[in-house]
Amino acid sequence: MLALVLDGAGHARVSTDHRSPDRPPGEALLEVRVRGVCDTDLQLARGYMGFSGVPGHELVGEVIACDDASWMGKRVVADINAGCGACAECAARGGHHCPHRTVLGILGRSGAFAERVSVPERCLVEVPSSLDDDRAVFAEPLAAALHVLDDCAERPRRGIVLGDGKLGQLIARALASEGVATTLVGRHAHKLALAAPLGIETFLERELPSSQRGADLVVEATGSESGLARALELVAPRGTVALKTTVAAKLTIDLAPVVINEVRVVGSRCGDLARAVDVLARGGVDPLPLVEARYPLARADEAFAHAGRRGALKVLVD
Amino acid sequence: MLALVLDGAGHARVSTDHRSPDRPPGEALLEVRVRGVCDTDLQLARGYMGFSGVPGHELVGEVIACDDASWMGKRVVADINAGCGACAECAARGGHHCPHRTVLGILGRSGAFAERVSVPERCLVEVPSSLDDDRAVFAEPLAAALHVLDDCAERPRRGIVLGDGKLGQLIARALASEGVATTLVGRHAHKLALAAPLGIETFLERELPSSQRGADLVVEATGSESGLARALELVAPRGTVALKTTVAAKLTIDLAPVVINEVRVVGSRCGDLARAVDVLARGGVDPLPLVEARYPLARADEAFAHAGRRGALKVLVD
Repeated sequence: MLALVLDGAGHARVSTDHRSPDRPPGEALLEVRVRGVCDTDLQLARGYMGFSGVPGHELVGEVIACDDASWMGKRVVADINAGCGACAECAARGGHHCPHRTVLGILGRSGAFAERVSVPERCLVEVPSSLDDDRAVFAEPLAAALHVLDDCAERPRRGIVLGDGKLGQLIARALASEGVATTLVGRHAHKLALAAPLGIETFLERELPSSQRGADLVVEATGSESGLARALELVAPRGTVALKTTVAAKLTIDLAPVVINEVRVVGSRCGDLARAVDVLARGGVDPLPLVEARYPLARADEAFAHAGRRGALKVLVD
Repeated sequence: MLALVLDGAGHARVSTDHRSPDRPPGEALLEVRVRGVCDTDLQLARGYMGFSGVPGHELVGEVIACDDASWMGKRVVADINAGCGACAECAARGGHHCPHRTVLGILGRSGAFAERVSVPERCLVEVPSSLDDDRAVFAEPLAAALHVLDDCAERPRRGIVLGDGKLGQLIARALASEGVATTLVGRHAHKLALAAPLGIETFLERELPSSQRGADLVVEATGSESGLARALELVAPRGTVALKTTVAAKLTIDLAPVVINEVRVVGSRCGDLARAVDVLARGGVDPLPLVEARYPLARADEAFAHAGRRGALKVLVD
């Protein structure tokens, strides 16, 4: 089948004869309808985590083979964390932190930049007919965006999102849709302009007024080394800093403000797909303005190159 | 009056003619019965925060003058954070993070290494007659120790405390008294031996087995630069790392595990004095074995020198 294949050493190429995935018991084979390119995909393509094979974890697919016949023919999205389903961690809190988990297109499991992909049936979430593919493909990153609210001790009144890229944009929309007074801070006036009509306050980073300090929640979604220090300046005592992006390099930072102000710094990764599908279906967040380009699967390598351009927003692959 | 006075430049001397504190409206004048030397006091004595004047925030006192006559003659401990009592922060969550607060013997307020000290009446907590001075003087650090439980999303099943010093010892006892399966990790066999009879598992740092990984709660109380990295190795996914000590230097650290494992790193400072008095009064924690030496106030400078010795436990000043 057609697929984008990474060699684990920094090279990506489109293959026309990649082997179609096996479907183990309990899994569903999906024909992929659309995929999104995420920054993690770009990192994997550069050799991150030594991943080789087919990447891709943002998808909408149609079930073409499965054990549980009720899934047959359904349009679905999928939780990317496939826990073993048998350990204490899976029993207690689902598979997101199962030590034996595979992660779709990221860790030990072939992903969605292919014609077909196999996914555990327990990871599937049905897409309602009212929700089109191009919006539904945002379910995975929107779930991650909404997940920052799970990190807060109580519902924040005011949130600041640092970073106007794909993820920052989604997080700002997610917070605003949940009634949080939201500020988006970035370096690109044209990207900030996308959020402003949605009731999201926007500032260029260098123009952020000091009156913005004291937010209950600050989300670091810049991926830059200075992001956490900036977040610690902006968060209120006993507030939450959510780290959404990993910085590859080690960070040098003064953590005394964390102790003195009793800040909680919370790492935040994947969220609840079903919640994200609900929010998308009721129009709480409309991600379509974030789509910058689309490519056919046969040109997925070009899609990756496009998505890797500085300041690019979402690139879809049909 | 007799007092230990810091000059803000690294010098401490005992003065016999220090001016007795004023008692502003709403405050109580205490005759101090006993004080504890805390590491923060030692840092202040070295010039930290540029504090000048009388340090001291662990105390038991007797009320000898007050506005509210019901306090007169009572034996008390005191919350060290004196909020303004008028701002939104004070209204919402008490004075611990009031931007206008003073902190007893630490920030803008004369402390307890003196014959008398003035404290806002709203900060006072009565010491029951069943609780002696030498135990009650631990109310402040024990409150801070118990406060780590407030930092957890849910009651931890298993906690690891890094650091067998005064604070680490108290935190381990606090956790154990609250039913948490507790491990204390340190570098001093003789100090670990103090905790072992209390049902606290103890390990020398270099001998900690990898089976200890995966704790719900890890408390960093070493004050060392490597403490946080070690804590991140030991904490379970979605677990809590409580930072109890500030590291003066900047820290260089890889925070990717925080994101991937969705760890919450929480700064943790002062706690609820009344809760600590309750725990001490019912014998939940007996801090007396942690007392290493005692000095009269006239030799408070020697008490500081003693407390500053490597590996010293609690030094009291009468």
